[in-house]
Amino acid sequence: MPAPIEFWFDFSSPYGYLASTRIDALGARQGREVVWRPFLLGAAFKVTGQKPLTEQPLRGPYALHDFVRSARLLGVPFKMPEPFPFFALGASRGFYWLEGHDTGQARAFARAVYAAAFGEGRDVTKPAALVELARPLGIAADALAAGSFTPETKERLRQETDQAIARGIFGSPFFIVDGEPFWGHDRLEHIERWLKTGGW
Amino acid sequence: MPAPIEFWFDFSSPYGYLASTRIDALGARQGREVVWRPFLLGAAFKVTGQKPLTEQPLRGPYALHDFVRSARLLGVPFKMPEPFPFFALGASRGFYWLEGHDTGQARAFARAVYAAAFGEGRDVTKPAALVELARPLGIAADALAAGSFTPETKERLRQETDQAIARGIFGSPFFIVDGEPFWGHDRLEHIERWLKTGGW
Repeated sequence: MPAPIEFWFDFSSPYGYLASTRIDALGARQGREVVWRPFLLGAAFKVTGQKPLTEQPLRGPYALHDFVRSARLLGVPFKMPEPFPFFALGASRGFYWLEGHDTGQARAFARAVYAAAFGEGRDVTKPAALVELARPLGIAADALAAGSFTPETKERLRQETDQAIARGIFGSPFFIVDGEPFWGHDRLEHIERWLKTGGW
Repeated sequence: MPAPIEFWFDFSSPYGYLASTRIDALGARQGREVVWRPFLLGAAFKVTGQKPLTEQPLRGPYALHDFVRSARLLGVPFKMPEPFPFFALGASRGFYWLEGHDTGQARAFARAVYAAAFGEGRDVTKPAALVELARPLGIAADALAAGSFTPETKERLRQETDQAIARGIFGSPFFIVDGEPFWGHDRLEHIERWLKTGGW
């Protein structure tokens, strides 16, 4: 079995959302599993000295324009959530708790969170909002709420975030393919070419 | 006549170099003139709070890897210059002085500077190095050296840099196409599509 594509992202990342709408199809075309790995981008920002794009002079207005334009090109709905930027702690913990039980359900939950946040502009920071997104997926609301707050779940997210930084991951989305790092949703064409040709 | 593609760049920008090897062919394919516009990216960094990618933790090592990998994909030579980052004042002034006399010669000079800096890793900060690059292009060495230091030339570069920032240009390369801004050499495919389809 070839190694899976690692898809690292923060739930509060607009470009992560855009990539999430395409990465599984890319993996399927190239015969690669895709492993979804949410992490807390803010922890990486502390290392790099960056802050959210939208809070930066000049870069912010461009980014807001480019998010919408890129989504339009991909044909996916896009609406900036309020509040933004937001701290995706609950969604990330919920993902890892779910993943401990059912990888498919964890991914369905991740898609639902991204679709709500950036497809509909909804607030996905509150536990009640996450439970509402989980219910139609057959996820027991109480279990998700409780599971997200266990010490094991909290520790898991911390470890994944630490691992991301230790491996040089500083942005969202970020991909690792056969050891090769690719940053940005605009590198998906490169990733697909890399997989097709075995690198260049 | 349709509006030209504006190609904004800093001579010390590796991704600007990569874009410079492709933008004229793109313009030719789409029936658009390309106007080359060097500016001092450091002035934009003062506004955005950024610094050169290579000086940033995590982002620096990735960038160095991606420069080389992207150049290999494009089939163009690549070597990081010493020193790096460098202050491209002389090359930028030389360009604008030349442009006042001969646009084609200015562009040939820009290509020569980029090829020396990032194709061969040479130092292009010193007047002697610039004169050496200009000579084979039929540019009178004394005239270039003198012209680069006139108050008009200095003022021209200042104005272009101010104009860039006033128009929201914060990175290199940066393109404006029919009023639409595109940042990054990895947006060239988007630019070509935009021109082909009239936007999306």
